[in-house]
Amino acid sequence: MSIINDDFMLTNEIGKILFHTYARDLPIIDYHCHLNPEMIAKDYRFQNAYDLFLSGDHYKWRQMRNFGIEEDYITGNREPYEKWLYFARVMPYLIGNPLYHWTALELKRYFDINETLTEESAKRIWDACNERLQAAEYSAQSLIAKSHVETICTTDDPADDLQYHRKLRTSPFSVKVLPTFRPDRVINIDAPSFLAYIQRNNITSYRRLLTWIKDRIGFFHENGCRLSDQGLDRVPYRLGNAEAIFNKKLAGDHITTEEVDIYKTAVIIYCAKEYAVRNWTMQFHMGALRNNNKIMLKELGPDTGFDSINDLCIAENLSAVLGDLDAENQLPKTILYTLHPKDNYVLGTMIGNFQRGPLKSKVQFGSGWWFNDNQEGMEAQMKSLANVGVLGAFVGMLTDSRSFVSYPRHEYFRRILCNMLGEWVEKGYYPKDMKYLGKIVQDISYYNAKAYFGF
Amino acid sequence: MSIINDDFMLTNEIGKILFHTYARDLPIIDYHCHLNPEMIAKDYRFQNAYDLFLSGDHYKWRQMRNFGIEEDYITGNREPYEKWLYFARVMPYLIGNPLYHWTALELKRYFDINETLTEESAKRIWDACNERLQAAEYSAQSLIAKSHVETICTTDDPADDLQYHRKLRTSPFSVKVLPTFRPDRVINIDAPSFLAYIQRNNITSYRRLLTWIKDRIGFFHENGCRLSDQGLDRVPYRLGNAEAIFNKKLAGDHITTEEVDIYKTAVIIYCAKEYAVRNWTMQFHMGALRNNNKIMLKELGPDTGFDSINDLCIAENLSAVLGDLDAENQLPKTILYTLHPKDNYVLGTMIGNFQRGPLKSKVQFGSGWWFNDNQEGMEAQMKSLANVGVLGAFVGMLTDSRSFVSYPRHEYFRRILCNMLGEWVEKGYYPKDMKYLGKIVQDISYYNAKAYFGF
Amino acid sequence: MSIINDDFMLTNEIGKILFHTYARDLPIIDYHCHLNPEMIAKDYRFQNAYDLFLSGDHYKWRQMRNFGIEEDYITGNREPYEKWLYFARVMPYLIGNPLYHWTALELKRYFDINETLTEESAKRIWDACNERLQAAEYSAQSLIAKSHVETICTTDDPADDLQYHRKLRTSPFSVKVLPTFRPDRVINIDAPSFLAYIQRNNITSYRRLLTWIKDRIGFFHENGCRLSDQGLDRVPYRLGNAEAIFNKKLAGDHITTEEVDIYKTAVIIYCAKEYAVRNWTMQFHMGALRNNNKIMLKELGPDTGFDSINDLCIAENLSAVLGDLDAENQLPKTILYTLHPKDNYVLGTMIGNFQRGPLKSKVQFGSGWWFNDNQEGMEAQMKSLANVGVLGAFVGMLTDSRSFVSYPRHEYFRRILCNMLGEWVEKGYYPKDMKYLGKIVQDISYYNAKAYFGF
Repeated sequence: MSIINDDFMLTNEIGKILFHTYARDLPIIDYHCHLNPEMIAKDYRFQNAYDLFLSGDHYKWRQMRNFGIEEDYITGNREPYEKWLYFARVMPYLIGNPLYHWTALELKRYFDINETLTEESAKRIWDACNERLQAAEYSAQSLIAKSHVETICTTDDPADDLQYHRKLRTSPFSVKVLPTFRPDRVINIDAPSFLAYIQRNNITSYRRLLTWIKDRIGFFHENGCRLSDQGLDRVPYRLGNAEAIFNKKLAGDHITTEEVDIYKTAVIIYCAKEYAVRNWTMQFHMGALRNNNKIMLKELGPDTGFDSINDLCIAENLSAVLGDLDAENQLPKTILYTLHPKDNYVLGTMIGNFQRGPLKSKVQFGSGWWFNDNQEGMEAQMKSLANVGVLGAFVGMLTDSRSFVSYPRHEYFRRILCNMLGEWVEKGYYPKDMKYLGKIVQDISYYNAKAYFGF
Repeated sequence: MSIINDDFMLTNEIGKILFHTYARDLPIIDYHCHLNPEMIAKDYRFQNAYDLFLSGDHYKWRQMRNFGIEEDYITGNREPYEKWLYFARVMPYLIGNPLYHWTALELKRYFDINETLTEESAKRIWDACNERLQAAEYSAQSLIAKSHVETICTTDDPADDLQYHRKLRTSPFSVKVLPTFRPDRVINIDAPSFLAYIQRNNITSYRRLLTWIKDRIGFFHENGCRLSDQGLDRVPYRLGNAEAIFNKKLAGDHITTEEVDIYKTAVIIYCAKEYAVRNWTMQFHMGALRNNNKIMLKELGPDTGFDSINDLCIAENLSAVLGDLDAENQLPKTILYTLHPKDNYVLGTMIGNFQRGPLKSKVQFGSGWWFNDNQEGMEAQMKSLANVGVLGAFVGMLTDSRSFVSYPRHEYFRRILCNMLGEWVEKGYYPKDMKYLGKIVQDISYYNAKAYFGF
Repeated sequence: MSIINDDFMLTNEIGKILFHTYARDLPIIDYHCHLNPEMIAKDYRFQNAYDLFLSGDHYKWRQMRNFGIEEDYITGNREPYEKWLYFARVMPYLIGNPLYHWTALELKRYFDINETLTEESAKRIWDACNERLQAAEYSAQSLIAKSHVETICTTDDPADDLQYHRKLRTSPFSVKVLPTFRPDRVINIDAPSFLAYIQRNNITSYRRLLTWIKDRIGFFHENGCRLSDQGLDRVPYRLGNAEAIFNKKLAGDHITTEEVDIYKTAVIIYCAKEYAVRNWTMQFHMGALRNNNKIMLKELGPDTGFDSINDLCIAENLSAVLGDLDAENQLPKTILYTLHPKDNYVLGTMIGNFQRGPLKSKVQFGSGWWFNDNQEGMEAQMKSLANVGVLGAFVGMLTDSRSFVSYPRHEYFRRILCNMLGEWVEKGYYPKDMKYLGKIVQDISYYNAKAYFGF
């Protein structure tokens, strides 16, 4: 029997009322994800349960590897059903892992499947899913619409022509699908592919680089973009002559770590100012240590489940970057995410340094991200935010997902939020005042994001 | 209705017994705070609820900013009641924040107000507080006396003439108000105001500097001081010629980060030895990242709510500073505080390196500080101390506050302590032996501090 | 009355079933400890309770010092009973410390003592223990056998002749006692005793060093060793000419921190490859800050209770060391332990970078170690592992102990594991499927280690 029932994750009465009365039926603003806009625009049809659940999800690949499944059965040439079966075999041992809950929710919400995925049930569930996937109501757009999604922000390269976003704007699909400007490839001067990227985009000087960035931001803005995203695996802050460093790089010379930081700082600050004048929101995703496995990087490329958490100090540089922008009154709305739970209190307090009314928490501490996207991680993020900031001003959840069936993660988040607040009330930490409790739940689930981003 | 009742924060029976029987009625030794001695000596009368609750409390300002309140309504020119009203508006959204509990406790304990502060109740509470504030029993001294305080240690600059402490010693006010020696302005050679400070105090050479420090310590000692406090935003440890660096600074030359550390290390160690011979206690407050907002620093100065948490490594340098002093048998009684929860286990184990009987925990891991001064922070500090040290030897709570109504934070701490111990007993982790449990609670609430500081 | 009863640490029904039905009766594989093989081989007889419980246990010494007991009563010349009495006096104040639980378990399991150790019961318990210690069933071997131990891995220096392990192999003692290769003294070129060690072993060149290491690994292998252990107080990663640095050291020249790191990296990687070809498991113990107290180091030597937790960054270097080995397909089975809880999520994700089937979690995140060897630390390790990895693949507990009565720590761990899983089931996070739950508990308690190490 599935663990999913009406009161899943709700262990107290107030929490149940909060979820069912205030949170459950609100639409979803998924302001950060990695869905493929082409698949949405073309209304992709999934071939089978493997295609839908496993084919693009490195979270699952990673856990299969942790269990000792060989790569052939993960990303290799084995038959889809064999891979599904191996995934099912791992599932019961994922006790305490969010994949256990996500999978149960996905099977229940999209396929009304009430049993737990195990080796024993693998074939039955495979057949049941595949049968339903034949129906039109399981196309990419239908899955999204069924999930009560209002807005989706994908993650896009500055050079992208956004053709699928443009198609979607004029299509009858009712969900807003907006691009997000992710300039990592322009910022990461230390990446092996940097020069090729610069050349492909005909950027021949630092001056042209800045113009190009500005133009692309303008183009994204015209196409509905209101958000940017930077992956700051380390937070750079060093002032200097970025132009000279860019020219060295163009000339093929070696550049030092310090020079990398100078260049990155300059471009990040340049971008931020462009966001600020357009009233965009800037996201910093900090603390990843990527591509650790050199063999698999060559075989499968990046974002295939070989990243982990870095543990560098971030506070001083982050304060300096934000502080410089703020001192010039050019700090955009900003969301700070970390992959290392040790940073929770650092970010929870950092945001308080740079708030400017009348916007509610112009600088935000972002929701538990990636390896923290689980009950413990979400509660830790919300508790630290509550302890040192104003929880009621939080813009809440996003999926950060590549999967078309990941929307129940919003439901999961809302259940965890409601359960946590309910527990506080039951312990006497907060009055049983449903007016305010309900409003806080609604704000964090939906209204804060709606007001903050202004899509 | 207020959340404050007899069993606030007490969710188990043993915890209730422990609090009501052993903790509740003990006096308070507030061995570290930032109360203004002039206001105590002059027995200041508060004009209204704004003056008492909001006018000097950057904890509250910070949360108002986090909620998007504009500065005019926080530290600006708006009417006191308007500011109060805005503060009241934020309050319900501070769910999970210690300010929510502190405010409720303060309204209940000092004004017997049983309702929650919200936009709706703001006017009623404002009027009720203001009416009572007319009475003499709401003067600074009365508020302290009413709080059952035995000793207060303020925080004072070495150059201070301690006139108000001296006045208080000969006044009829029954509470001991002692100074604390806080040599930050002599130590922070990298602060912009360093040279002006040195010159104002006629310090013309390194030798005179040391003499001056020693004289001031002596003067503080005569005036009842038994404690020092250093704010170590980073922990320096580097040996070298501090005198040469001081001279460079006097000559207006630039000094490097390494030189700053050499100077600071020397002065910290010099001070520590002077404390040791006088049997003082030395406090290190580590991990703050201060004055992040440059505009507001200019407008409002330091300590106005724009500080956050730093995340540097501290273990090796801290061990070296304490180790050098200990190796010369000149380590004073020491209390280590951190602003970053990641350091809890570092400090919990660090203290065990340098204990010397017969004093119980000569080196102490200090209570959850500032951004950790909340239920989660206090429990994390006490649990880590319990896991790697002797919780029963802990000197317990302090307010660290600028507010005259912050004494219920001791009550709050005691409730949390009793609840935690009670929970352990109810789970079977410790026998229901009220003799020892009661003694542990009494020791941590009062007797350990009394024995440790020897005021 | 003792806190130990059938359901100690078990606060929910599923947890009780899991412990009593699946975990309790499984044998123990203690794959990492510091028991003295000579004492095992000679079947040591303990003189009294002090000899058994206190004489070699720096965990206890440390807490006595934290309580202000003077050294004379800890490691000094006082009578054994006096020391015991002082230890008993501290005990009640160790509320929340694992020593409280360990001591209660040890008294109950080995001596059937049902009262709590306090000043009042000290003499009674002393007498009762000493009386029983006269019996043969309290010899070193008997204590181990009675604890249902199947395999013990001690920790041994490369130069060790393993005479006691060899004796034990041919003795009638039924428990496997295997050595572990701990090459710290060959790796730590920055230790004061390095040169003496190198010379004592007739190592006259870098080439001979490598040969010597390889020979010793071979010798250990012949004697049943299948495990190595490195204490990496900081994680080095720097490539360079290790031979030149070794020669400088031999010549008595100063070597820099960078050179230390180059040498260490080279030797660690060299050793790892030798482990890999023999299918050994490599352990990294990271994050200790040792020998902080200079006076006591001189008086008592290392490992006497003056170590604490370091807080350096470890992720990038650790990834590089493991990544280089993996890229050459020469990464052995590896277990990563940390002393700093901030690293839990770093290690929980790091292991996922380098898994290779068909072995279940070839790279493991090791159990809560030393200062984390307590309920909070074990739960934190298991929860972070569960959140980002596959808890069901975990090889579980070890004692890391110098004490012959520390085996109840396996029982303690199993109770905590079962209680945690039971709680998850009772909250609805996992189905009440006893088949899988029972298997997970059995795997983590015993079968995973059995399959993983292949002793």
